Amino acid sequence: MKKALLLLLFSIATYAQIDKVEPPFWWSDMNLSDVQIMFYGKNIAQNEVSVSNGIIIKGIQKTENPNYVFVTIDTKNASAQNIVFTFKNGKKSFTKNYELKQRKENSRFRESYNSADVIYLLMPDRFANGNPNNDSHPSVTEKYNRDLPGGRHGGDIEGIIKNIDYLNELGVTAIWSTPVCEDNDENYSYHTYGQSDVYKIDPRYGTNEDYLKLSQELHKKGMKNIMDYVTNHWGWKHWMMNDLPTRDWLHQFPEFTQSNFRMTTQFDTNASEIDAKNCMDGWFVKSMPDLNQSNPLVLNYLIQNAIWWIEYADLDGFRVDTYSYNDKVGISKWTKAITDEYPYFNIVGEVWMHDQAQMAYWQKDSKIGEIQSFNSYLPSVMDFTLHDAFGTVFNEDKATWDKGIVKVYENFTNDFLYPNPNNLLTFIENHDTQRFNHLYPDFKKYQMAITLIATIRGIPQLYYGSEIGMAGNKDKGDADIRQDFPGGWISDKNNAFTASGRTDVQRQYFDFTAKLLNWRKSKSVIHSGKTTHYVPENNVYVYFRYNDKETVMIVINNSADKQTVKTNRFAENIQKFTSGKDIVTDKVIDLKNEITIDGKSVLVLELKK
Amino acid sequence: MKKALLLLLFSIATYAQIDKVEPPFWWSDMNLSDVQIMFYGKNIAQNEVSVSNGIIIKGIQKTENPNYVFVTIDTKNASAQNIVFTFKNGKKSFTKNYELKQRKENSRFRESYNSADVIYLLMPDRFANGNPNNDSHPSVTEKYNRDLPGGRHGGDIEGIIKNIDYLNELGVTAIWSTPVCEDNDENYSYHTYGQSDVYKIDPRYGTNEDYLKLSQELHKKGMKNIMDYVTNHWGWKHWMMNDLPTRDWLHQFPEFTQSNFRMTTQFDTNASEIDAKNCMDGWFVKSMPDLNQSNPLVLNYLIQNAIWWIEYADLDGFRVDTYSYNDKVGISKWTKAITDEYPYFNIVGEVWMHDQAQMAYWQKDSKIGEIQSFNSYLPSVMDFTLHDAFGTVFNEDKATWDKGIVKVYENFTNDFLYPNPNNLLTFIENHDTQRFNHLYPDFKKYQMAITLIATIRGIPQLYYGSEIGMAGNKDKGDADIRQDFPGGWISDKNNAFTASGRTDVQRQYFDFTAKLLNWRKSKSVIHSGKTTHYVPENNVYVYFRYNDKETVMIVINNSADKQTVKTNRFAENIQKFTSGKDIVTDKVIDLKNEITIDGKSVLVLELKK
Repeated sequence: MKKALLLLLFSIATYAQIDKVEPPFWWSDMNLSDVQIMFYGKNIAQNEVSVSNGIIIKGIQKTENPNYVFVTIDTKNASAQNIVFTFKNGKKSFTKNYELKQRKENSRFRESYNSADVIYLLMPDRFANGNPNNDSHPSVTEKYNRDLPGGRHGGDIEGIIKNIDYLNELGVTAIWSTPVCEDNDENYSYHTYGQSDVYKIDPRYGTNEDYLKLSQELHKKGMKNIMDYVTNHWGWKHWMMNDLPTRDWLHQFPEFTQSNFRMTTQFDTNASEIDAKNCMDGWFVKSMPDLNQSNPLVLNYLIQNAIWWIEYADLDGFRVDTYSYNDKVGISKWTKAITDEYPYFNIVGEVWMHDQAQMAYWQKDSKIGEIQSFNSYLPSVMDFTLHDAFGTVFNEDKATWDKGIVKVYENFTNDFLYPNPNNLLTFIENHDTQRFNHLYPDFKKYQMAITLIATIRGIPQLYYGSEIGMAGNKDKGDADIRQDFPGGWISDKNNAFTASGRTDVQRQYFDFTAKLLNWRKSKSVIHSGKTTHYVPENNVYVYFRYNDKETVMIVINNSADKQTVKTNRFAENIQKFTSGKDIVTDKVIDLKNEITIDGKSVLVLELKK
Repeated sequence: MKKALLLLLFSIATYAQIDKVEPPFWWSDMNLSDVQIMFYGKNIAQNEVSVSNGIIIKGIQKTENPNYVFVTIDTKNASAQNIVFTFKNGKKSFTKNYELKQRKENSRFRESYNSADVIYLLMPDRFANGNPNNDSHPSVTEKYNRDLPGGRHGGDIEGIIKNIDYLNELGVTAIWSTPVCEDNDENYSYHTYGQSDVYKIDPRYGTNEDYLKLSQELHKKGMKNIMDYVTNHWGWKHWMMNDLPTRDWLHQFPEFTQSNFRMTTQFDTNASEIDAKNCMDGWFVKSMPDLNQSNPLVLNYLIQNAIWWIEYADLDGFRVDTYSYNDKVGISKWTKAITDEYPYFNIVGEVWMHDQAQMAYWQKDSKIGEIQSFNSYLPSVMDFTLHDAFGTVFNEDKATWDKGIVKVYENFTNDFLYPNPNNLLTFIENHDTQRFNHLYPDFKKYQMAITLIATIRGIPQLYYGSEIGMAGNKDKGDADIRQDFPGGWISDKNNAFTASGRTDVQRQYFDFTAKLLNWRKSKSVIHSGKTTHYVPENNVYVYFRYNDKETVMIVINNSADKQTVKTNRFAENIQKFTSGKDIVTDKVIDLKNEITIDGKSVLVLELKK
């Protein structure tokens, strides 16, 4: 006991001047071997810094704030070890150990998500409460209050882990959880986009170890873990806000300046400088200070933090929030750094625009970006224009030149603008949009939409609850489209996680979705086959997915009435096939003359000779 | 008398077997020196063809139809002369003279229209009847009937020539007349897009010489003549239709097949072959056989015909009809050939699409076309998306995120997609669209729209009658938007060609338009200056045109209410300027603090220090 106390005192004396070290550790054998370590502590910058044998300090950067020092070390040929930093100020000195862990074998060349996957987007606070003991936590302000729509409801990582079997049964193969790092806002912290510590999982979700365990448990089922990363801003409760390393760590204005959200200023050659600056540097909301990625210290911090999470939590991909609100040069450097470290790592950016050329601008190796010598290096963007079409199309029973299912057809006519259309995320809703089942409280319309994203090019993304017909109305506020998944809480009377717990309506939605998505799992013809589509006639959209081995014919009748489709028009795809087996009903349909299809319905036909 | 008769008989014997020679003559010193001459006559192909000394026959092409022979001669080093062709069949032979005229000096490097111009689009049958003697003509079927909205009304080239002073006073600098070659359709020939002889001006408009005279008279006033050229189709009464050179001169189908008009199939990588073929090869309407530009004989015919008209009628530019319905490879060869002959010649294609990337695809050296290794060589396209915005914007008094004048702003945010945004044709209406003054029977809205196209980048195009508030409703049929210009017929009581003849309303429209366009004539800052625009606030759009010499500030208030605009936001453009003189009212406006502007009104301010 006496010895322990002595050790403790010694340790306080030794480490007294260091409050934070970030990244908290690093790995050997990293491509990014020059790691810039941030030491934070009272007047830390007054010290001379040296390092143990074998490691080279490549740079020491100080800022106007004496409480920070950024030390870049070269770990290129370093094996896993404890690196010892010595801080010396006159006659006083102390040391700080820094761990270089052994990198996992083949970590660099990890695979990622792709068009063979179906992604399940969930909000951890709203999905399932696996551990009621962490619903509140002393280290964070906002406490559990499930009665408050925008409050903390207690969902957590343990809740996700407990329901992996459910997700597997549904047929999704990857999860994208909205952010999980600590968000210490007093209100609305449940969405967790205003992070207060980007090296720590929010204690109401669990621990860093729990998050790693989530990856491990998913991997056991062949599933993938996608992190929602936020480069554009932190929360105003981030610990650094009280003591910024440099004033320009953030975009600061004489008075609060919100972004004008006009992302077109990112490329508009006619744009005024003030509008462009306002878009990129203005704050998303008052509680989210806007990070300045054109400051190399900030950029490095974000790069290293992102890589740290991939390496630590064994991640399979990123989704990046508000991608196109970042300084575009900065964010492209960030994205390039991540994919330089992990060449096969997929990253989908939220580029919420309504014009395909504008979205294609942001995909890696875009010819449209190239017009301005810009390469974002972002592998994937979201198909927001398809989502725009979904907003009205299923109520357009009568087709005109530009109304009806032709809107969906038209979305795919511009695929050539994208460097990689098969790496687009397709979705019918997400956590920021109106709920599909509110727009269309109609199972048949849901069937059409889900069939579309499950069979067209790209990576389908579901939003938790879609698969059981969950509604919610965004006009009532975001909380309404982010309701608790029924069955995630012990007290829930309706448990949609189990077949027996589902209502009839939930079962109808679930069974259809699960059948379609489980079928899709093994269908390389859908994952990577070619597409041929036909100009819709009578509000019926017909397209084919095909490769050397097989052909799938999809027929979507968006008219309210039964339609007959003559098959000779599709000869170039039907070729010698004579019938098609509908993967939903198992019915075999003759292709010789014509196909009859009910109003507001779909056929997914595996063609047979 | 006897001698004359003998000569006549001799001449019949000599030329009996040649009914048509096209092009009817050519020029020396042409870049296109290999000219392919089509000889048409009963069994003409049975002859051996030879040519007079000094000229080389580079190729003789016969087709399945013995009534045609295509002879390519090399005129590279030939001076102007009469070339003599000899046709020999066994012992019989005859000769045919072919004139090689002296090319006009500097013809090749003629200038063309550009953003310093304002183009006036008119329909010759509907503008002015300068010569009542040619209202009907024995060689063409449809006769004068001004009582019929879709009939022949008697307007002609002489009518245009007589009103050049009017056009000059209005401030336009170029005319684009809808087609003038013979259209021998029995009905609706007034629009003249179904041409029956592309080497002959329709006799109801005048003669070939009259058309040349039109150019000459325009040139005297420093104005330009733009021909409306149709590559996609001819009229079904074209003389060749009864005896086609080859079956594939046209796109032929087992039964009449109309185009699906889905021009996206031109680049859609997912498009079915049948849809793409149908779009390009399907006929525009039943009476307009679709030309097959992928047949080199057809392509050559069209190239030579186009060059012939430029050279013969001393033209200053082309507008090309239905550009994007042509076989895209064929039409790009055509366009390249024209601009190879005349490197500064401007050609604007009708690419009626609703997406800027899709339109930009068709402009010369497009990076978007380059994605598919396609270059259309077309210098100019029409700004149809701006026209789309005009369709609703001026009734949107209340601005939202995507409604109100922001729609116009957004149109210009994509300018970077165009290789040359300053060579876009901007317009508020044309002969195929709803009349602006029907959509908006409101002078203030007209002022906003005309000010926009007169001051933004690009080449403004007026449609005859816009400038006097002419209405017409397309929903009643095309004839309603193509009414006679008042004053173009002697019997017209209202003569809008003269100041004294105009009604008060006509005077209001004309005076404003003429003031604006005449001001524009000398404003290089508008013709070629840079543009900076600002995100609209409160439905007010502010943009600047500037060069080293001057700055113009344009303020467009699309809200119904008076608005106050603080000027400090525009500091990067206002710089040291302190006031602005409105070019319409001559009022001087102080720029120090704020500008007040009435609802639905415009300010065009020349800035002063």
